[in-house]
Amino acid sequence: MTNSIRERVESLREYMRRNGLCAFIIPSTDPHQGEYVPEHWQTRKWISGFDGSAGTAVVTLSDAALWTDSRYYIAAAKQLEGTPFQLMKEGLPETPSIYDWLIDVIKNEKLKIKNEADGETVNGQWSMVNEKVVGIDGDVFTADEIQEMEEVLGKAGIKLRTDLDPAEELWTDRPPIPKNKVEIQPLEFAGETAESKIERVRQTLLDRIKNEKLKIKDGNADACPAGIVISQLDDIAWLLNLRGSDVHCNPVFVSYVLLTLNDVTLFIDSEKLDETVRNYLKGIGVKVKPYGPSPNLSLVGRGADSSSAKVTTPLPTRERLGEGLVSSLKSIKNDAEIEGFRKAMIRDGVAMVKFLHWLKPAVEADGETELSIDRKLTALRAEQPLYRGLSFDTIAAYGPHGAIVHYEATPESDVVLEPKGLLLLDSGAQYQDGTTDITRTIALGPLTDEERLDYTLVLKGHIRLALTRFPDGISGTQIDALARYAMWQHGINYGHGTGHGVGSYLCVHEGPHQIRHTWKPAPLHAGMTVTNEPGIYREGKHGVRIENTMLIVEDGETEFGKFLRLEPLTLCPIDLTPVIWEMMTQEEVDYINNYHKKVYETLSPYLNEEERNSLPQPLQRRGE
Amino acid sequence: MTNSIRERVESLREYMRRNGLCAFIIPSTDPHQGEYVPEHWQTRKWISGFDGSAGTAVVTLSDAALWTDSRYYIAAAKQLEGTPFQLMKEGLPETPSIYDWLIDVIKNEKLKIKNEADGETVNGQWSMVNEKVVGIDGDVFTADEIQEMEEVLGKAGIKLRTDLDPAEELWTDRPPIPKNKVEIQPLEFAGETAESKIERVRQTLLDRIKNEKLKIKDGNADACPAGIVISQLDDIAWLLNLRGSDVHCNPVFVSYVLLTLNDVTLFIDSEKLDETVRNYLKGIGVKVKPYGPSPNLSLVGRGADSSSAKVTTPLPTRERLGEGLVSSLKSIKNDAEIEGFRKAMIRDGVAMVKFLHWLKPAVEADGETELSIDRKLTALRAEQPLYRGLSFDTIAAYGPHGAIVHYEATPESDVVLEPKGLLLLDSGAQYQDGTTDITRTIALGPLTDEERLDYTLVLKGHIRLALTRFPDGISGTQIDALARYAMWQHGINYGHGTGHGVGSYLCVHEGPHQIRHTWKPAPLHAGMTVTNEPGIYREGKHGVRIENTMLIVEDGETEFGKFLRLEPLTLCPIDLTPVIWEMMTQEEVDYINNYHKKVYETLSPYLNEEERNSLPQPLQRRGE
Repeated sequence: MTNSIRERVESLREYMRRNGLCAFIIPSTDPHQGEYVPEHWQTRKWISGFDGSAGTAVVTLSDAALWTDSRYYIAAAKQLEGTPFQLMKEGLPETPSIYDWLIDVIKNEKLKIKNEADGETVNGQWSMVNEKVVGIDGDVFTADEIQEMEEVLGKAGIKLRTDLDPAEELWTDRPPIPKNKVEIQPLEFAGETAESKIERVRQTLLDRIKNEKLKIKDGNADACPAGIVISQLDDIAWLLNLRGSDVHCNPVFVSYVLLTLNDVTLFIDSEKLDETVRNYLKGIGVKVKPYGPSPNLSLVGRGADSSSAKVTTPLPTRERLGEGLVSSLKSIKNDAEIEGFRKAMIRDGVAMVKFLHWLKPAVEADGETELSIDRKLTALRAEQPLYRGLSFDTIAAYGPHGAIVHYEATPESDVVLEPKGLLLLDSGAQYQDGTTDITRTIALGPLTDEERLDYTLVLKGHIRLALTRFPDGISGTQIDALARYAMWQHGINYGHGTGHGVGSYLCVHEGPHQIRHTWKPAPLHAGMTVTNEPGIYREGKHGVRIENTMLIVEDGETEFGKFLRLEPLTLCPIDLTPVIWEMMTQEEVDYINNYHKKVYETLSPYLNEEERNSLPQPLQRRGE
Repeated sequence: MTNSIRERVESLREYMRRNGLCAFIIPSTDPHQGEYVPEHWQTRKWISGFDGSAGTAVVTLSDAALWTDSRYYIAAAKQLEGTPFQLMKEGLPETPSIYDWLIDVIKNEKLKIKNEADGETVNGQWSMVNEKVVGIDGDVFTADEIQEMEEVLGKAGIKLRTDLDPAEELWTDRPPIPKNKVEIQPLEFAGETAESKIERVRQTLLDRIKNEKLKIKDGNADACPAGIVISQLDDIAWLLNLRGSDVHCNPVFVSYVLLTLNDVTLFIDSEKLDETVRNYLKGIGVKVKPYGPSPNLSLVGRGADSSSAKVTTPLPTRERLGEGLVSSLKSIKNDAEIEGFRKAMIRDGVAMVKFLHWLKPAVEADGETELSIDRKLTALRAEQPLYRGLSFDTIAAYGPHGAIVHYEATPESDVVLEPKGLLLLDSGAQYQDGTTDITRTIALGPLTDEERLDYTLVLKGHIRLALTRFPDGISGTQIDALARYAMWQHGINYGHGTGHGVGSYLCVHEGPHQIRHTWKPAPLHAGMTVTNEPGIYREGKHGVRIENTMLIVEDGETEFGKFLRLEPLTLCPIDLTPVIWEMMTQEEVDYINNYHKKVYETLSPYLNEEERNSLPQPLQRRGE
């Protein structure tokens, strides 16, 4: 392996010399800013051998380094052993930034080359002494990133070239871009035709141009965009009412959309489109062109064939205008989508109840492990109508594993579940009418006082947020503290966000809004989905997280404006055995009772008597 | 008046022609970004006649306009009548931005001039056809503002000239910059010598340079600043342990400081410095130079005489490095400052208690008005030792006036107080050992149910925030909602922030931290002062606000990090007659009881028996 890595780096350097580059930067992203990167774009893994989800490889003519964060210090160190790459531990004060390192290394290499150079050197090295050029594949960086790079490197006299993808030539056994078939998302689930969505996008774009001109961040008129490039795959799937299966757990398909005020072009491998879909697209007036490098907005309206162009310079105002436009329209669910969520949540709840009913006896009967219960739960979900797969890889984390926020059981890490302690179970599925995301923490038997305290504090936070009425249009950052208040009083906190949007048979993590301690300006509005998932994690001991997917609903209008609140979409009992009732207010107890009443009434028609009886009966009052 | 306004505008246009300008922009700010602008810098009022606190005047060769916000629509319309200025209502969709308007007007004027022009016109108009230059006084804009102007106007082919102050020549009876004497703030109150503060500033600056280089926002090394220019007057007063009286309610003096890694220069009118202060400055190695336009950092270290230079181009990285540096050091109070606050709060509390004890009988006895009680309270404060004046103009707002957030009683608006309804009283003083800011809302007699509800909800918000334990270093934005939660549940909200820092015998509004619904990234740390002042305002009815100045204190460290809480510094009873006790939790009642116990114990030694007995006795339990 390390040998082939060395060969790959050498081949890249040869490529760099041919193209007059003194360095190449390879990130871990793909051209569609997705959470999961298809194998085809895992170039950073190919060149370095490091397979973590986050990392950036930089190769110069004589040097090579890989930056990654603390999650991967150990794994990366092991995987980079014997390769030309030195590990750069992001977040440590002594670690130089990529820019610092790059600028220093290049300066020194230049001197070396200059000194060795005998007047007219081969491989254009001589020109490289005078010209310093760093290469990237412009498609796998955002416009902002490219702009920053150009600024920083520019100040150091280094040029940036953005139109190269060495992997295309050097990565001989590069996995192809998936060619899975695209299917139409029926109107009964989508709730709005693609034509209507396209019209709304154009209208919003025009409004933004108008506002932009009023605020005039940019003096010249032609900053008004001829259109927008849509590269985020779930935005494209939503816009055109299409779904695919190119990306793990995400029903999307690799493509771009170029939407101008006059027409819409879908850039996609035509093999993915059967006749039905081709006719459908023709019917809604969407042109189809071959998938290639991202369309170049700057050429739009100047009659150029966009499909072959590359984004070479970012266009600040244009980009800004398109930014998050489709995502924010997508984030407000229509009635059909909401109806779909409710139905999907019933099916998902039924699967969860059947699972929970099965779990404890199975654990007591011995032999169940994190992986085996994962398989069991997945099987129960698969039995449900309209099931299309998981919405993310299940997190089944027992005991200390629960404290590892992104734990995913492997045959190596898998452990047997015992009738004691806490099991953290974060899972979700894709149904054609809705996506689910639920976390339950389950007492498999006796608990420590600390486990009960943490569980009760997380539950109090979850309920406080669910009970909060808040003004329309505020940021999720402004209500995040309500989920933390109870645990803060005990000197406890958690590092992750409290909530994220959930797609309608799309990505389980959907923007632009979030409920988060760090600043997320996107305003909250009725019709948005958002999770409510506070947690507490004690390293080496246990983890607690309780998550329902919620719908933001209107809650009346006063002289002070419109108000909103969160309504639970998820339908599944919350384990009450760990609760320290003396710590709960009557208001909180009432909330649980009402929630469990709703769960009981909605799910029981789909359960057998035994399962039905396994559901918690409403407690009459606190503690009882 | 309107005549003289017309003459002033004409004289400015003549000045513009002479200097080859086609427009001049005059804002309402001064070179020191203060809250109160000394008469000397009220150029916008001089040129336009509009005396509101916020507004920007723009004069072109043939046109003139003034932008201001909704607070001033009516007043501005009246004051601009008959002047060459048209009113531009900021915030209305149809209102063009200053840039839009300017760019259009200039374009048209150019054409006009070109057509009229007979080859070689007088007053350099001809050159102006080819060269479009807009003038500003660079000193009264921030670096960011200037940068934005240069970008936006630049894109429209318009140059910006920043080194002109026409008022200097045209405003013949311009009030001089105040020449009040500067005095030394004794070490017993300052708690740290100026030398030590200067050293800490330098250390912080060096640290920032180091981090900056790591993050390397700017490739070239000479971006490392030779020093920083300090223009915020309270930063200067804090740094040098000096106080003045140049600005209304703020014990500061007009000056600049240029702090380099080698020396410190104070740019100030030497008349303000008596021999003691001059010797003191010499003793701590601070050079004194005449006050003039702001020192030019870009020349520092290149041996140029900074005092005469102007900031012509902003220096992004440099500016950034200095940004808020002194303010953030100043915001953490040392032990002597905290001790001073506590003592000042006792004196302020005594004055408040005497006032409250006097108020109700006086109102029943008739004849008291908003202005008369303001005088009474000020007199009681003035009796206190170390009193130096008010920290801001008292807000004494009775009934409907309470709903006007920035109400200030005038002889025209003044009303007689009746023994009913709510009086909102927001006031504070400057004592040499600390600055105070307190709001009490007082029931003068019978209240409506709505008044009682609003009062109770504000009190609940105030207490919730005061009870909150929160992680060290989070932003005030993250805890703002805790003060609003109770009223949100009733569909009520308020538009202003919840808290601001308070200076140590300095400005009553002190940064960089805030507790606010809009994003304020500055982290909260122990040693900071911050107000806790939620409110409810019902137009035409009443206003409620309850404000204590708080100290951020450490509240233990756990495996999850350091935690903080707010401790009240303000010592003054909170009116309990309006409280709806059924809405209060026992925890909230206990908080009030403990607070009133502390108030009683701390203040009674300074009160006569009658005043002492007027203090609320702790309620034993809820409702009783």
